[in-house]
Amino acid sequence: MSIKFAERMNKVQKSFIREILKVTENPNIISFAGGLPNPLSFPIKEVEEASIKVLNENGSDVLQYSTTEGYRPLREYIAQRYLKRFGLKVDADEILITNGSQQGLDLLGKIFLNKDDNVLIERPGYLGAIQAFSIFEPVFNSVPVNNDGVDIDLLEKSLAMNSPKLFYTVPNFQNPSGTTYSENNRKAAADILKKYDTILIEDDPYGELRFIGEDLQPIKTYLGDKSVMLGSFSKIVAPAMRLGWICAKGEIMEKLITAKQAADLHTNYYSQRVVHQFLMDNDIEDHIKKIRKLYKGQRDCMVSMIERYFPEGIKSTKPEGGMFLWVTLPEGISSLELFDLAAKENVAFVPGDPFYVNVKGSNTLRLNYTNSDEKSIEEGIKRLARAIGKL
Amino acid sequence: MSIKFAERMNKVQKSFIREILKVTENPNIISFAGGLPNPLSFPIKEVEEASIKVLNENGSDVLQYSTTEGYRPLREYIAQRYLKRFGLKVDADEILITNGSQQGLDLLGKIFLNKDDNVLIERPGYLGAIQAFSIFEPVFNSVPVNNDGVDIDLLEKSLAMNSPKLFYTVPNFQNPSGTTYSENNRKAAADILKKYDTILIEDDPYGELRFIGEDLQPIKTYLGDKSVMLGSFSKIVAPAMRLGWICAKGEIMEKLITAKQAADLHTNYYSQRVVHQFLMDNDIEDHIKKIRKLYKGQRDCMVSMIERYFPEGIKSTKPEGGMFLWVTLPEGISSLELFDLAAKENVAFVPGDPFYVNVKGSNTLRLNYTNSDEKSIEEGIKRLARAIGKL
Repeated sequence: MSIKFAERMNKVQKSFIREILKVTENPNIISFAGGLPNPLSFPIKEVEEASIKVLNENGSDVLQYSTTEGYRPLREYIAQRYLKRFGLKVDADEILITNGSQQGLDLLGKIFLNKDDNVLIERPGYLGAIQAFSIFEPVFNSVPVNNDGVDIDLLEKSLAMNSPKLFYTVPNFQNPSGTTYSENNRKAAADILKKYDTILIEDDPYGELRFIGEDLQPIKTYLGDKSVMLGSFSKIVAPAMRLGWICAKGEIMEKLITAKQAADLHTNYYSQRVVHQFLMDNDIEDHIKKIRKLYKGQRDCMVSMIERYFPEGIKSTKPEGGMFLWVTLPEGISSLELFDLAAKENVAFVPGDPFYVNVKGSNTLRLNYTNSDEKSIEEGIKRLARAIGKL
Repeated sequence: MSIKFAERMNKVQKSFIREILKVTENPNIISFAGGLPNPLSFPIKEVEEASIKVLNENGSDVLQYSTTEGYRPLREYIAQRYLKRFGLKVDADEILITNGSQQGLDLLGKIFLNKDDNVLIERPGYLGAIQAFSIFEPVFNSVPVNNDGVDIDLLEKSLAMNSPKLFYTVPNFQNPSGTTYSENNRKAAADILKKYDTILIEDDPYGELRFIGEDLQPIKTYLGDKSVMLGSFSKIVAPAMRLGWICAKGEIMEKLITAKQAADLHTNYYSQRVVHQFLMDNDIEDHIKKIRKLYKGQRDCMVSMIERYFPEGIKSTKPEGGMFLWVTLPEGISSLELFDLAAKENVAFVPGDPFYVNVKGSNTLRLNYTNSDEKSIEEGIKRLARAIGKL
C-alpha cells in the first residue's frame, strides 16, 4: 500500500535543531545548541506547594475538563501584568491560553493563512515560527534585522510589494540573533504597518528576561488592534508546563477559539491551576529577578570568553536579555563546516541555515548561554575557538 | 481594516455543544448534555502523591522541555497495555503522546488531508472529529452505524465510490450513539478495508469503560498497519491532564512527529510524569473497576428511568460501556424543538444535528449519564418525559 499524505507535509522540514541535538547526546559535549532555560531557575518547591494546594482545595474541579479559552483567573493575571508593565489595557477576554506559544503560531497559521499567502519574517528568524507556518504553505519573504531592529526601508518595500498577511517578529532579545528593537525602531515599524493590512505577530517569550537597560513598550502600544501578541510562562516558570498565550481581540479571538477547540479542546487545566496558584503565592518579581541575575552572569561570561578566545574578524551580538547570542563568521565560511569541526572538539551550536528560508551554507550561528555554567562556557568557547582555528 | 481569514475557517463551526452548554449554566438545570467523566472517579489523592514524588525525585528534569514523542516510560506503558489487553504487539516507538486524543485528530487531519479529499465518518459520528477534520476542508461522507456496528454493505459502497483517505470510527461505546461494533462486524469491516487504500482511524477513548460483556479486539487486530489507533487517559485518570496518544508506525509516525513539533513542540511534560508515576504506584485495574461500577449504576438507572417514564414510540440504546446513550424520537420530530421544551423543564441534552454532516432537524438526541447522580437522573428523565409529552 502506498500512503498518500497531504501536500502540506512536503513543505515542512523535520527540525534541524532536533537532528543536531542528537549530536549533543554525547555526554562529553558542551552544548550551546539547545534553547533550554537553566533548571536552576525552576521553582520546584513552589510548584510542589501549588500542586498540593490546588488538589487539596479544588481537586475534582482541577482534574475535570475545562473551557477552551483557559482558566479565567490566569487570563486575568496576564491581562493585569500587561497593564502593570506597559500600561496596556488588555481585557481577560483578549487572552487565550495555549500549549506554549508554539501552539499560538499553529493557531494563527490556521486562521490566517491560505496556501500561497505571503508571510513576512525576520532574517534571521525564529525557526519554530517558520516550521509552524510552513504547514499552511505560505510564501515566505524576509526582512533583515539590524542592530537596532528591523530594517525599516526594506520592511516598507516588502509590505508594499508582497502584501503579506502576517509580519512575524520577536522584538525583544530575538531568537536567534539576540537583537532588541529600539524604541524608535518600534515606532517607525508601527507607522509603516499602519498603512498596510498586514497583521503584526509580536512574539515575546523572552521579554521578562532583560538584564541590561529598561523594558521597552510592545509595538502594539503604537499599533493597537493590528497587533497580536504572544507570551509564555516557559521562561519565567517552567517549559514543561507548556503554558503560553495569545493576546488578540474581536473576530481574531473568535476564530482562534474555534481553531483551539478543534485542535485539542483546551490547554492542560491542572497545569493552568498549578501555575496560577504559584503566581498567587509567590513574589514573581523576585523570582524573575533571580533568573535575570543568573542569565546576566552567564551572558557576561560568554561575551568575555568570546572576546578573549575568538580570533579577529568574528562578530557576535551582545544581548541585553534573553538566552542567545549570534555569531557571524567571515564571509564565505559555512557554519555547517564549523559544526563538524566543533563536534570533533566536543562543542555544539546551531548553524544559521535553519533560521533563514532557503539559505544553505550561511556564515552565522546561534549560541545559547543559559544552560551551561561559567566553567563550561569558558571551556566550550575555548573549544569553539580551536575549531574556528581549523577552518 | 478588514481582516482576511483563511478560507478553511469558513468550513468549521463553533461547537454546537459549547453553545448548548451555556443553557446548562443555570444551576436549576439537570444536564445530560456534557460529556464529563464523574469527578467521583478522579484519583485526587493519588495525583497529589505522584506530583510530590516526581518533583521531589526529578524536579528540574520534570519541569524542563522534553521530547516531541513524549515520555518514553509512559509510551512503553501504553504499548505494554495493548499487549496485555489484546495481545497486540506495539512498540513504544509507535506511540506519540498528544494533548488529549482531540489533538491526535488535528495531527491526522494535518498529515493526511488535502482540500476536497474524502473522509468517511460514522452516522451519527463524533462531532469533535468532524470539527478537527473540517479545518482541513475535506468532503465528508458518512456510513450508518446500526445496532451491531457499521453497515457493512454501505461501508463497501462508500469505499469503492469515494476512495476516502480516512475512515474514522469509535468502535467501543460510540460517541454519540453508545453502539459497540460486534466481533463479526469488526472482522467484516477489516476484510473490506483491506481491499482499499483507506486508512482506518480507530478512536477508543471509552474502551476501558466496559461494564457489561467482554472486551473485543481492536479492528487493528484484523487489519494491521492500515489502522491508526487513538487512546486517552481522560476517562481513566483525568481529562484536565490532556493526555492522549496516537498509535501508528513508519512513515505515518514520522509525519505525525513533524506535525506535532510544529504544533506545540511537545505535550505537557509535568503531567506526563505525574500520570506515569500514578500508573506505577497504583493498581489501575482496581481504579478502572471502580469507575466501571460507578458508571454501570448510572447507566442502569437512566435505562430503567427511560423505560419507566418515556412514552411509547421512543427508542433508546442500552450501551455496554462508555458514557452516552442515544434516543430516537418518532419520525418527523426535531430534537431541537424538544430541546427548547426541555430547557423550560430545566433539563438539557445534546440534539442530534451536530453529530451529522449537513443534517438539520434530526429526531435523535444524546444523553450523558456519567455526570449525574441517580436522584438527578430520575428527576431529569421525568422532566424530559414531561417535555416529550408537550411535543
